Amino acid sequence: MRGEIIVIGNELVSGKVSDINGCYAARRLTLAGFYVTGITVIGDEASSIESALRCAIARSDFAIITGGLGPTSDDITTEVIAKTLERPLVQNADILSRLESCLGDRGVVMTSEHQKLALLPQGAEVIDPVHHVCGFFIIHHEKPLFFLPGVPEQMKDMLDSHVIPGLLDKMSHRTYVKERVLKVFGLEETKINQLCQGIEKDQEGITISFLPRFPETHIVITVRGKQAQQAQDELGKAEETIRKRLGNYIFGQNDQTLEEVIGHLLRSRKLTLAIAESCTGGLIGHRITNIPGSSDYLDRDVVVYSNRSKEELLKVPRKVLEDYGAVSGECAEWMAKNIRISSGTDLGLSVTGIAGPTGGTNQKPVGTVFVGMSTSKATVAKGFKFSGSRESIKTMASQTVLDWVRRYLTDDTFLFSY
Amino acid sequence: MRGEIIVIGNELVSGKVSDINGCYAARRLTLAGFYVTGITVIGDEASSIESALRCAIARSDFAIITGGLGPTSDDITTEVIAKTLERPLVQNADILSRLESCLGDRGVVMTSEHQKLALLPQGAEVIDPVHHVCGFFIIHHEKPLFFLPGVPEQMKDMLDSHVIPGLLDKMSHRTYVKERVLKVFGLEETKINQLCQGIEKDQEGITISFLPRFPETHIVITVRGKQAQQAQDELGKAEETIRKRLGNYIFGQNDQTLEEVIGHLLRSRKLTLAIAESCTGGLIGHRITNIPGSSDYLDRDVVVYSNRSKEELLKVPRKVLEDYGAVSGECAEWMAKNIRISSGTDLGLSVTGIAGPTGGTNQKPVGTVFVGMSTSKATVAKGFKFSGSRESIKTMASQTVLDWVRRYLTDDTFLFSY
Repeated sequence: MRGEIIVIGNELVSGKVSDINGCYAARRLTLAGFYVTGITVIGDEASSIESALRCAIARSDFAIITGGLGPTSDDITTEVIAKTLERPLVQNADILSRLESCLGDRGVVMTSEHQKLALLPQGAEVIDPVHHVCGFFIIHHEKPLFFLPGVPEQMKDMLDSHVIPGLLDKMSHRTYVKERVLKVFGLEETKINQLCQGIEKDQEGITISFLPRFPETHIVITVRGKQAQQAQDELGKAEETIRKRLGNYIFGQNDQTLEEVIGHLLRSRKLTLAIAESCTGGLIGHRITNIPGSSDYLDRDVVVYSNRSKEELLKVPRKVLEDYGAVSGECAEWMAKNIRISSGTDLGLSVTGIAGPTGGTNQKPVGTVFVGMSTSKATVAKGFKFSGSRESIKTMASQTVLDWVRRYLTDDTFLFSY
Repeated sequence: MRGEIIVIGNELVSGKVSDINGCYAARRLTLAGFYVTGITVIGDEASSIESALRCAIARSDFAIITGGLGPTSDDITTEVIAKTLERPLVQNADILSRLESCLGDRGVVMTSEHQKLALLPQGAEVIDPVHHVCGFFIIHHEKPLFFLPGVPEQMKDMLDSHVIPGLLDKMSHRTYVKERVLKVFGLEETKINQLCQGIEKDQEGITISFLPRFPETHIVITVRGKQAQQAQDELGKAEETIRKRLGNYIFGQNDQTLEEVIGHLLRSRKLTLAIAESCTGGLIGHRITNIPGSSDYLDRDVVVYSNRSKEELLKVPRKVLEDYGAVSGECAEWMAKNIRISSGTDLGLSVTGIAGPTGGTNQKPVGTVFVGMSTSKATVAKGFKFSGSRESIKTMASQTVLDWVRRYLTDDTFLFSY
């Protein structure tokens, strides 16, 4: 079944806001086995809406239209649909009573704008009769047309819980699409590409694509098959091959983030963590504390932006700062060791570097970053040379130190390989 | 002049990647005074490309088409255009010699795939004869059709330096579009809407729109006029009116961020800053250090995630933690005061709260956050109740404390209004 998506909103055609609804719907439909032929973005303009709707009905098996269903005067979608499909607007009793009770609860008097929400084209059915959200569908010349709100959360919810299940029911020859994302850090995309070569040839129905998602690369394995189990098996087989070839460069899959992975590892090993960061400025702590429950393993994080704070909070000897500088392996080792000892945690992490755009020298150009890690058995530090903007350098530095934690927790020899 | 944009790429209709080219082109065209009627996203499929192109020619004054111009077999745009417009493919001598010299430099032998790049529909003109990038235009039935590469950097460059100037030359009655964004924090969107009422009516050619950009609201003032200076003047007038009505709730304009604004204020006042954060986990430090040169005013930031670290690093008395809890105005005051005193800075900031999703109680539900600020003259703290996800609560808390700094630095009475 071939379908298309129409996204309506003036803010989209003027480029003020980029479309997310169309992309989301395309993704979900593709993964459900439908073929999306296009996403049409238009303004809240009657002629555009009418023309897009006519084209969709002529060339597609179904269409999903989002936006312009609200109560204000610039929301004209419902009215234009009614005219285009030659179906008069009819008051929907369900919506009207829902509106009455909802407004009543809030002590608001119903206006003609509210009443407008209850006017639907003849033959339209409300998609979600339970929740207080507008959205309806019409079967027009046997083609289902879904009209969804433009608010992304509402649109996503309605699409996933009503529209896609409804469409799947209609498909006689279903194609099963299974997908897995493997997330890689620390390997060049060309290298990943090389390592994955031949898999698509060896396994029919498999597609492997590579998405650069700085600072990571995501490998997307997609399988299309006539049977769900078979597609799932093929996916597992391809995943196994890739995992064998890439090893520990794969840090997670699907929606997992690196901070989630290390949170899980720390928790299961009952280990605690303290951080001393300089050029990353709090980003490492921010990422770690994005994970609910991170207070179980993160004790503290000190952002020692000045030399004085490095001396006062971490007892980095002045001689180290003078002889080697704050951006040095020696300083990173002191920082990691002393934050671990002073906080009494199992692991101490440190980052010190030059995020730029100024502050670089010939010996230590912008992007020079030292990462340190300390345990009761060893303290190590290593220098890196990252490139790009200030934010890219901060991101790479935080990713590198988080990946060290992951590698240390999954490979006992990691710290001693330095 | 009404134009439309067609974006071609399989990765876009499958929703793997969201479109950025279409949105960028729409923005630039709108600001240049053109009216964009739609953005059509389609796959690398002959029938889709043909249909989109035919529709565009029928209904628009010009069209911009991006993607599918490369050398590989899935790049079919040029071929489909030739067929649709009934213009045979002709070898372009300029491109061919450019390719020869370019490949020669790299010691690469020309293949049929390379030669494909030199085949353009009859009547096509190369857009940028200097750079090694493919892109051409065709005037078809007096309508300019621009074909640009899908690589965003190349597309943007070609659009800005060739396509838009070329289109502007064609316009007999040019419209000048001027725009300004005013950024607001701390006022509800409905309230902002009320305060801005009547301005559009009073001033012809002015449009005011409101974009929620959590946790901020952005007011976009747009003016269209026949003369550049007049449009600029109208814009200034509308901005003045809005600034008068909203006062200090406006913290910045256009691309300015709140952290940039306070960085500028701290630097010009030669003041320094230290931070003690708990539930924000490093986010405040991260935001402040995103600004180049922030080491001039940020001395340190301690993320005191455990009670022990609050006692050890900030000397918060155990009695305060026991009597009031770590999430309390009392604790926030101690944190702000002691980080200021121990680091010897002019300002001390603190945040302590419950980011959730767990850890809330009846008295202190998830979202309870205390913000503190300390100067040599006063130390204050205030409680807030934020809602939403863990990340939303962290964002609101960091934004609130940064906005306190801004308000303190622009209004001497701010601290004493608590």
